[in-house]
Amino acid sequence: MFNRSLHFLPDGFDREDYIIATYFIEEKPGIDIIRFAETLAVDMSTGTWTAVEGETEEMREKYAAKVISINEVPNFEFELPCDIAERRYVIIIAVPSVNIGCQIPMLLTTIIGNTSVMGRIKLLDIEFPKKYLGGFKGPKFGIEGIRKLLGVSNRPLLNNMIKPCTGFTPEVGAKFFYGAAVGGVDIIKDDELLSETEYNMRTARVKLYMEMAKKAYELKGEQTLYCVNITDRADKLLDNAKRAIEAGANALMINYLTQGIASMQSIAENPDINVPILAHLDFSGVLYANPYGGLASHLVLGKLARLAGADMVVYPIESGKYRLLDERYRQIAFDLVLDWHNIKRTFPIPSGGVHPRLVPKILSDLGYDCVISAGGAIHGHPMGAIAGAKALRQAIDAFVSGIGLEEYSANHEELASALEKWK
Amino acid sequence: MFNRSLHFLPDGFDREDYIIATYFIEEKPGIDIIRFAETLAVDMSTGTWTAVEGETEEMREKYAAKVISINEVPNFEFELPCDIAERRYVIIIAVPSVNIGCQIPMLLTTIIGNTSVMGRIKLLDIEFPKKYLGGFKGPKFGIEGIRKLLGVSNRPLLNNMIKPCTGFTPEVGAKFFYGAAVGGVDIIKDDELLSETEYNMRTARVKLYMEMAKKAYELKGEQTLYCVNITDRADKLLDNAKRAIEAGANALMINYLTQGIASMQSIAENPDINVPILAHLDFSGVLYANPYGGLASHLVLGKLARLAGADMVVYPIESGKYRLLDERYRQIAFDLVLDWHNIKRTFPIPSGGVHPRLVPKILSDLGYDCVISAGGAIHGHPMGAIAGAKALRQAIDAFVSGIGLEEYSANHEELASALEKWK
Repeated sequence: MFNRSLHFLPDGFDREDYIIATYFIEEKPGIDIIRFAETLAVDMSTGTWTAVEGETEEMREKYAAKVISINEVPNFEFELPCDIAERRYVIIIAVPSVNIGCQIPMLLTTIIGNTSVMGRIKLLDIEFPKKYLGGFKGPKFGIEGIRKLLGVSNRPLLNNMIKPCTGFTPEVGAKFFYGAAVGGVDIIKDDELLSETEYNMRTARVKLYMEMAKKAYELKGEQTLYCVNITDRADKLLDNAKRAIEAGANALMINYLTQGIASMQSIAENPDINVPILAHLDFSGVLYANPYGGLASHLVLGKLARLAGADMVVYPIESGKYRLLDERYRQIAFDLVLDWHNIKRTFPIPSGGVHPRLVPKILSDLGYDCVISAGGAIHGHPMGAIAGAKALRQAIDAFVSGIGLEEYSANHEELASALEKWK
Repeated sequence: MFNRSLHFLPDGFDREDYIIATYFIEEKPGIDIIRFAETLAVDMSTGTWTAVEGETEEMREKYAAKVISINEVPNFEFELPCDIAERRYVIIIAVPSVNIGCQIPMLLTTIIGNTSVMGRIKLLDIEFPKKYLGGFKGPKFGIEGIRKLLGVSNRPLLNNMIKPCTGFTPEVGAKFFYGAAVGGVDIIKDDELLSETEYNMRTARVKLYMEMAKKAYELKGEQTLYCVNITDRADKLLDNAKRAIEAGANALMINYLTQGIASMQSIAENPDINVPILAHLDFSGVLYANPYGGLASHLVLGKLARLAGADMVVYPIESGKYRLLDERYRQIAFDLVLDWHNIKRTFPIPSGGVHPRLVPKILSDLGYDCVISAGGAIHGHPMGAIAGAKALRQAIDAFVSGIGLEEYSANHEELASALEKWK
């Protein structure tokens, strides 16, 4: 007996009108998965747990979410193993985009809102129709725009986050900044732990760092982007962005998950903000680490960040510091760089314990359209920060030239020293 | 050998300068938990995975987070069981609030930011010093303020969310609203799935619903608050709030986790917003469902929502529809209603599949300072929505009078009918 007949698509069903969400579900063997999937779909749209007078057939056809498929994995057919403790499913549901509108909060509320408190359900993927994507502006610069700003078209980029993370003055930070910039870093960012403190005011920092960028340019002949962290109370965010740009910042950084994805989007799409935005990973594990709940990492750090306009995304790489399966780290990069209708491509910045020895692996995995990112490996280099940055540029150059790290280090002492320290 | 000597508190350590965070950690038996805890603390403040030149002893003493305690549970002393697969710990870390400032994004970035991608670590509790709480305004109305607006001091309140959730016009919704209001609902909210759609514009809805509230007042002599859902792109949120209030709305609703907790705070603390705010639970499971990661539910739905200024929080109750351990649902309520320095008390609204039979349990658990919340049990009542609301008011009255539901229903047909339908 079918409760609401939602699992057959109605006449005239047009995928362009629906957002397609894919879920992993684990449930006890006794559950009626067909009814459960229907309940999920209804709960994402018109209905509730008991029939109500106002919910008509016409409303359901137009505005209810539809179950597109239910697949059990593994796919038992003859009988269940007698000792089975749970059954697992992949379920695909189509949600009418007209209920949601082109905005991220109602999108998440609809597809992983109350669903998140209904059991072991993880959102694995979201597919957006072209029309829906058209309601988002995406990154203003993207990979190509950032390459243009930096004047670098033919190699992977190098990023540095100032270390130590926090607890220092702008004057102290400026020394770190200068070393990294002179050594050849393309993009320098604040640590996510520093936004504005009484001992390190943002505008003062921007002014000093941008002076250093200018001095470094005179030496190295390369531009340096400085992504200043503007994360703050929501009502201060836009003002922080404007004041930072007025003070000379040529890029911004937002801890977009603790700030709110929608808040980053509001900065990215603001016509007055004419610099690229770097989105930082912190808090992301809260959303994706659960194998049985939350959202897959490539959505949190890939599709959603890009949809919300991040020009660059710093995300984890398994390297002793952070945990992330190798396939996930590559999947996130795919979501950031593959063609996606009107939405520009976002620079992947895999990060966490990266040092020169990891460079060949990252570049083999992701290609040239990525940013090598190092904090400690630059500021903790035995010969100092300038050498730390040089060592990483040398590791990149070695890869681009098709030469192994050890061989290349024979003529490059900074790289040799780094390889010696971080084995 | 102690790496950074952080686990002894320095001279002059003053708890008023620190936010105290408690974590659950599960790790392989081989890990050095003392070093791991130190690494966590360093990673939340000054340091990184490798020593860097700029990190001085003085900086660490002032600005580094400090490990206060490491406790293994269970607490092995003589030897480990030979078959032990993992060891579990509760670790307490003190983070200097001066690094963070009185804002929620940097708070979360600091205490559960990168930590969230470092392994099996769940944030169990946050303790704020009084001075830090003083930087937040909290709920503008709180329990006492809402009771004053409604003129109800001596009983639990009744809330209704319009069902069906979405897919209807304001005119259709107004009928549902009227029924609920006349039947005795104190607070009516939109479903979280409806904010603004082309078939249901917010301002039109507010005007019609508030007319119904007025009509209902003439009949019942009681006020009705209407919490209109303003969830939207971040750059529209304040404008949505103002336009809704101009159109007559006497309360607001925000899906605060998909919107961003900080965004809700910006509305709650805005001096132009002079109506109470209801915060909705959707997406919360993404943050707390993982036993080995994320944040405990009483933080997501309790402390943080209240800190960010929610006057009311709709949160799950285990009832067949949503999943939440009974002790968690009570713990959330404690976080919302107990005294907390300058921060007003927030109304707990446990929700999800609530019908009259659950009323005595909820009121026994939470006392009078809570809101009974029902959607389907009102709009799906066999005798219609007015009767559905009446049945719930009767269930509340029965409890307040100390009379059992069955006995009370002998003279109250709406309650009798509901008890018959939802056994």
